[in-house]
Amino acid sequence: MFNFGIKKQSEKSRARTGILETKRGNIQTPIFMPVGTLATVKSVSPEELKEAGAQIILGNTYHLYLRPGCEVIEKFAGVHGFMNWDRPILTDSGGFQVFSLAKLSKLSEEGYAFQSHIDGSRHLLTPEKSIEIQRCLNSDIIMCLDQCLHYPAERSEAESALELTTRWAKRCRDARAENNIGGALFGIVQGGMFNDLRQRSLESIVEIGFNGYAVGGLSVGEPKDIMLDVADFTIPKLPEHAPRYVMGVGTPEDLVALAGMGADMFDCVMPTRNARNGQLFTPHGAINICNARFKYDMEPVDAHCTCYTCRHYSRAYLRHLYMARELLAYRLNTLHNLHYYLNLMQQMREAIDQDSFDVFKKDFYAQRIK
Amino acid sequence: MFNFGIKKQSEKSRARTGILETKRGNIQTPIFMPVGTLATVKSVSPEELKEAGAQIILGNTYHLYLRPGCEVIEKFAGVHGFMNWDRPILTDSGGFQVFSLAKLSKLSEEGYAFQSHIDGSRHLLTPEKSIEIQRCLNSDIIMCLDQCLHYPAERSEAESALELTTRWAKRCRDARAENNIGGALFGIVQGGMFNDLRQRSLESIVEIGFNGYAVGGLSVGEPKDIMLDVADFTIPKLPEHAPRYVMGVGTPEDLVALAGMGADMFDCVMPTRNARNGQLFTPHGAINICNARFKYDMEPVDAHCTCYTCRHYSRAYLRHLYMARELLAYRLNTLHNLHYYLNLMQQMREAIDQDSFDVFKKDFYAQRIK
Repeated sequence: MFNFGIKKQSEKSRARTGILETKRGNIQTPIFMPVGTLATVKSVSPEELKEAGAQIILGNTYHLYLRPGCEVIEKFAGVHGFMNWDRPILTDSGGFQVFSLAKLSKLSEEGYAFQSHIDGSRHLLTPEKSIEIQRCLNSDIIMCLDQCLHYPAERSEAESALELTTRWAKRCRDARAENNIGGALFGIVQGGMFNDLRQRSLESIVEIGFNGYAVGGLSVGEPKDIMLDVADFTIPKLPEHAPRYVMGVGTPEDLVALAGMGADMFDCVMPTRNARNGQLFTPHGAINICNARFKYDMEPVDAHCTCYTCRHYSRAYLRHLYMARELLAYRLNTLHNLHYYLNLMQQMREAIDQDSFDVFKKDFYAQRIK
Repeated sequence: MFNFGIKKQSEKSRARTGILETKRGNIQTPIFMPVGTLATVKSVSPEELKEAGAQIILGNTYHLYLRPGCEVIEKFAGVHGFMNWDRPILTDSGGFQVFSLAKLSKLSEEGYAFQSHIDGSRHLLTPEKSIEIQRCLNSDIIMCLDQCLHYPAERSEAESALELTTRWAKRCRDARAENNIGGALFGIVQGGMFNDLRQRSLESIVEIGFNGYAVGGLSVGEPKDIMLDVADFTIPKLPEHAPRYVMGVGTPEDLVALAGMGADMFDCVMPTRNARNGQLFTPHGAINICNARFKYDMEPVDAHCTCYTCRHYSRAYLRHLYMARELLAYRLNTLHNLHYYLNLMQQMREAIDQDSFDVFKKDFYAQRIK
C-alpha cells in the first residue's frame, strides 16, 4: 500500500501539501526526515522523535548492512521492530556512503565493489543487492542505487553517471518486481549541475516508472545558487502526482526555497549533527551554545519554542553540559534542532494549505538576523 | 526542615526502614542515591530518573565548584533549578575529589590547597569554603569536609586523619550555624580500617552532633571482607535515630549486606559508570552487553524487569548500539542499571517492612549465578 495525493496546490507558487499513504501510517508533506543512520537517530528515543513531530525517518542501507547486518535485522522483521519505531522508514540505496565512506571502492557496470570502513571486509553492492538489503530492512520507501558524483564533475563524467544510474534504475525496478517487494520504490534523477543532463536523466527515470522521484547529487559542495538553480529546473519537470524528494538537503533556508519549488520530501544530517556540535537553530538563525555570552543566560534557546529542551532548560545549563561534554547535552540539543526543523515543515504545510506561503516566506526571512 | 523517623525496625536483624523528611519531599530509606556529578546523572533526564524511582540524587561539590561555578548556579538558586530536578539533592564536601582527581593537592590544618584537574587553576578548599559552596548549590543534605586516606594506610596516618576530620567537622558545624544554612549537615566517621580508631572517630563526631552520620573511607581498595567488617563494627554504634549513610558503596551484594547492618543511605557510580561500559545488572549477576552471544538475542536484558529499556529493546539491539558507540546505548544501559539498583532498594524496604528481610536475602543470593 502506497499512495500520494496532493492536498493543496498553492495558486501563487509551485508549493504544495500532500499526503503520502503507507501501511505504517500517513505522512503529511512537505516533510523532513530525521536521519537514523544505525537504527537510531543519534541520542534520541523513538518516543522523543514522535514528540518532536517526526512522521518518518531515514535509515542508511550501507551502515545497517555492515552493522548489525541483515541477518540480525531480519530476525526482527525489519528495522522498525529492531529499534522500536512503528512509523515509516525510508532507506537510501547505500551508494552515497560507499562513494563517501568506504575504502577503495571500485565502480563497474555490475555495481560498487568496496571495502568496509570498519574492518576492511570486501563487499559488492549491486542494484539487486541494494534492493535485497532494503527488503530485509523492511523499508517503507526504497531508493534505487545510483552513481554519485563529486563536485565539480566534468560533463562527460556526469553523462556517464546518469546513464549508469538509468540502467541501474531498471535493474532495481526488476529486482523489486521479481522478489515481490512491498515497499514503494523511488527513482533518482542525476545529471550533475548540467540542466540538459538533468532533463535527460529525468525523462529516462520517469519512463521507467516509480512510486516517487528524487533529485540526487545536490548538496555535494556546489555553490548554493547552483544547487537552487538545478533544483528549480528539475523539480517542476518531475511528475506532478508523485512525491518529489530532494536528497540530503539542507539548511532551513534551503527547505523553504525548495518547498516553494514544489518539493515534498527532505532529509539531512544537519539538525542532528549540528546539535552534537553545539549549533542550535532559532527563527533568528543558529547560535553556538558554547559561546561565553551564554554562561549566565537563564533564558531558553528560543523563548517561543515548545520543545522539551526549551520548556525545561536554560542556555546556561545547555552551555554547561556542552562544555563538560555531558551525554545529556547531545540529546537536549538534538531534540531542540529536530523540533525546529519539524516545526518549520509544519508551519510551511499550514501556510500552503491556507495559500499564504508567500507571507510565510516573507516572515521567515524577516526574522533572520543577517 | 529535616527529620528522620524509623518506620520499621526488623526484629531478626539490624535492618530498618525509615522516612527522611526534607523540604523537597520525603525519602523512603534505605535508599540508593544516583550520582549526578555535574548537575546531570550522566545520559539521563530528570523525568527518566523519576521513572526509574530516584528519590534523591548526589551532586559533587568539587566538580560543580569548578564547572559551571557557584556564580552560575546561584543565579538559579541552586542545582535543582539549574538542572530541572525538584527532588532533594545531597552534596559531598569535595574532599574526596580533591584527594583523587586534583593536581598537586596539599593538605594543611587550614584545608586542601589544590590545582584544578581541568585548567590547573589554584584553589583552597577549607571546611568553611566547602559549606559555603554547598550552600550556594542549595543542597538539601550537606556533608562535612573530611580527610580521605589511601588504602592501605598506616595507623598513624589514619589517626591523624581522623583527628583532623574531627576538627574540620566542628568548623563545618560552626560555619553552617553562623551562616544560618538550611540544609541538613552530616558528619563523617573516619579511622581507616582500625576499629578502635573508628570508635574514637564516631564518638567525637557524635559528640559534635549532626543531622545524620556517614561512614567514610570505605571502598577505597580494601578487600571486601575488611570493608564489611569495618562497616559492621561502625554502623550499629551510630545514633539509632539518625540516618546512617555509607559513602561510595557499592555492588548489589554490598547494599544488601549493609542494609542488613542498619545502613540507610548509599551512593555509588557503579550503576551509571558500568552502564557506560556495557555492564548490565540482573538478578542473576551482571552481563556484558558486547558479548557476541547477544548478537541475535531477541530477549530483553531481564525478562522480569519493568524498566523502559527492558520493555522496548532486545539484547541484540543494545549490543548493536553499544558496539557502534551510539549515544542511545549509554542512556538505555543507564536506565536499566538505575532501575535495577533502585528497585533492589525498594524490594529491601518492602522485605524489611514485612520483617522478611532474611527471606529476601536468601532469595537474592539464590538467584545469583556463581
